[in-house]
Amino acid sequence: MNGKPLVSIVSAGLSKFGKQEGLYARELFAQAVKEAFDRCPRLEPKRDIKAMFVGHMGESYEHQGHTGSTVADWAGLLNIPATRTEAACASSGAALRSGIYAVLSGLADVVLVGGVEKMTHRSTAEVTEYLAMASDYPFEQWHGITFPGLYALMATAHLHDYGTTERQMAMVAVKNHYHGNLNPKAHMQKEITVEKALSSRVVASPLKLYDCSLITDGASCVILTKPEQAGKFTDSPVHIVGSGQASDTIGLYERKSFTSLLSAKLAANTAYGMAAVKPEEVDVAEIHDCFTISEIMAYEDLGFCAAGDGGKLIESGETRLGRGIPVNTSGGLKAKGHPVGATGTAQAYEMYLQLTEQADKRQVKDARVGLTHNVGGSGATATVHIYRSAL
Amino acid sequence: MNGKPLVSIVSAGLSKFGKQEGLYARELFAQAVKEAFDRCPRLEPKRDIKAMFVGHMGESYEHQGHTGSTVADWAGLLNIPATRTEAACASSGAALRSGIYAVLSGLADVVLVGGVEKMTHRSTAEVTEYLAMASDYPFEQWHGITFPGLYALMATAHLHDYGTTERQMAMVAVKNHYHGNLNPKAHMQKEITVEKALSSRVVASPLKLYDCSLITDGASCVILTKPEQAGKFTDSPVHIVGSGQASDTIGLYERKSFTSLLSAKLAANTAYGMAAVKPEEVDVAEIHDCFTISEIMAYEDLGFCAAGDGGKLIESGETRLGRGIPVNTSGGLKAKGHPVGATGTAQAYEMYLQLTEQADKRQVKDARVGLTHNVGGSGATATVHIYRSAL
Repeated sequence: MNGKPLVSIVSAGLSKFGKQEGLYARELFAQAVKEAFDRCPRLEPKRDIKAMFVGHMGESYEHQGHTGSTVADWAGLLNIPATRTEAACASSGAALRSGIYAVLSGLADVVLVGGVEKMTHRSTAEVTEYLAMASDYPFEQWHGITFPGLYALMATAHLHDYGTTERQMAMVAVKNHYHGNLNPKAHMQKEITVEKALSSRVVASPLKLYDCSLITDGASCVILTKPEQAGKFTDSPVHIVGSGQASDTIGLYERKSFTSLLSAKLAANTAYGMAAVKPEEVDVAEIHDCFTISEIMAYEDLGFCAAGDGGKLIESGETRLGRGIPVNTSGGLKAKGHPVGATGTAQAYEMYLQLTEQADKRQVKDARVGLTHNVGGSGATATVHIYRSAL
Repeated sequence: MNGKPLVSIVSAGLSKFGKQEGLYARELFAQAVKEAFDRCPRLEPKRDIKAMFVGHMGESYEHQGHTGSTVADWAGLLNIPATRTEAACASSGAALRSGIYAVLSGLADVVLVGGVEKMTHRSTAEVTEYLAMASDYPFEQWHGITFPGLYALMATAHLHDYGTTERQMAMVAVKNHYHGNLNPKAHMQKEITVEKALSSRVVASPLKLYDCSLITDGASCVILTKPEQAGKFTDSPVHIVGSGQASDTIGLYERKSFTSLLSAKLAANTAYGMAAVKPEEVDVAEIHDCFTISEIMAYEDLGFCAAGDGGKLIESGETRLGRGIPVNTSGGLKAKGHPVGATGTAQAYEMYLQLTEQADKRQVKDARVGLTHNVGGSGATATVHIYRSAL
């Protein structure tokens, strides 16, 4: 509870996000790992890396479980302890958290954490079904609701309770597409307008096509070590100074509120407390915008604005690059894409770039404090991490 | 590397293993947790338990992922960090390892680790398919081989290279059924003869029905804390003094040897070194006998006998209750059953009973040092843990 670094990120890697035909998840993961190794020539992977955690959500996409060992081999790290973590779309947020435990334990000084998902070779109906496994089978799936429907319920409540508008939701999409167009690894490389978003087809009212994140192939990783050992591997580490994870009911129907995620609020409180950071001190954030309403709710859950003011915050423009608190400079799940298991550590990758001033056209000026917010399902899991530049 | 306790088990729970009709995995898990809580009245679960790791192998059985948060809620632990770990049949061995990291990290003083699988409501063909996801999709599954076939290849090699016999394999089944009959929670409550095992139908030659473990519903858990805090919760903790985890190629076809699991040898070496324990000092062991040949190979990989002598060891009777090194006093995967995600921490549960002298009819006299050996797939993951009684 003192802001001291818990662990340090000494390198990071990300595959191209998008449609990657003819590759298995393990091959995507190897792309991300190769970048991380190339960025960190002082690291000897086989000698130094002592454990791996890999977020991977769905065994169904490739009829393949046992992902930890599989990708460890393809990463050139045969024989190390390698475990898959799964917490729906927060699978690699949970991998990051598990990796922090491992480094702090003293049993594994250098740990690779990452995530991967290969999705686009499946039909949209199949993907929708596989994603639905992150919701409650007997009380949600069984009745035919899928994730756009669950988030549409939240959006409806938010619009009703706070006067949030569909136009404000569209503005989230416009902002994230603008950012994504500055990120060569983003799935979508095009800007859109509010009108285009508002006139796109309805998926689950009030959510339209442009309110929904993308079905994407991709992988991500970061390499963690003890802060006192970071200098051995890099001159520009990024410190993780706060880590929070919390759970909630699997079913949305059991929650007191549909306009806020309790898990995210709890995880954020833990992370802020550990980091001794206040929301207004955050310079750059990657937020789990699986739907545009999610980003609006997260502004509130993370304390970037008061409850109910998320719509006004996006409308103010303050979360756009160049303004007060740029959110989803990578393009977010909306434009960079959402290969579900890879998303949590892809957010950490963006923090690594931003806080080492390697984010090129989307660099946030003088970014020193960053935050990532990764949500599983309709909020049964959330992880929040806070980062500090060593610059 | 000094034999000091890493963490201490302060309680443990196990559901009845077997066919549990009409229950979801989350309900099975709650049975295990209830026993662990009831055994430990000084623990206030909601106040004390700070994190959970839950081994769960297959989302397909119940069309349900996101298992960590789901079972946390059903365990009465809503809102704590809860992560599913998956490493095929070593999923809860990996949960145990992850829980050890968490306790040692200082971020979570008391951690519940467990595992669960609900399998019997599916047909044997479905279960076989779901289990196969732990093998390599492009190079194994795609060609039609399933786990009995993979282990049959290993058995064939062992029979060829070392003169191990089908009769010796049958003796593993006979011993574990004998033990299982002493365990009221075991799936199978009947003894068998060598003749019965040898004359059972062929599943994948040379493996016959009685060489194969059971398709079972079940859940298990143990509660971990720092050794110096164990006394707060119990007067009879069991210390974990060694922990090893290792990986290998997902595909059997890429291995140098078919008669030994490199991952298990590496994990054992790590655990023995950390525990400062030699194989001959182990008083009781739970071994991953997914097939009878696996137990024979494990005797060798764990150093209970020399390479190739596993068949002779079972034939000597030394691994039976009352003899030198009783193995699988619970009945093992063969007779207690193999609800895949639950197996790793079910082994730890048996160690808790044995090393606190609560194993009733199957109690190993003066058991002070125990070992568990949990294997994922055809050996792409293995975990080995070593335990010491505080008595």
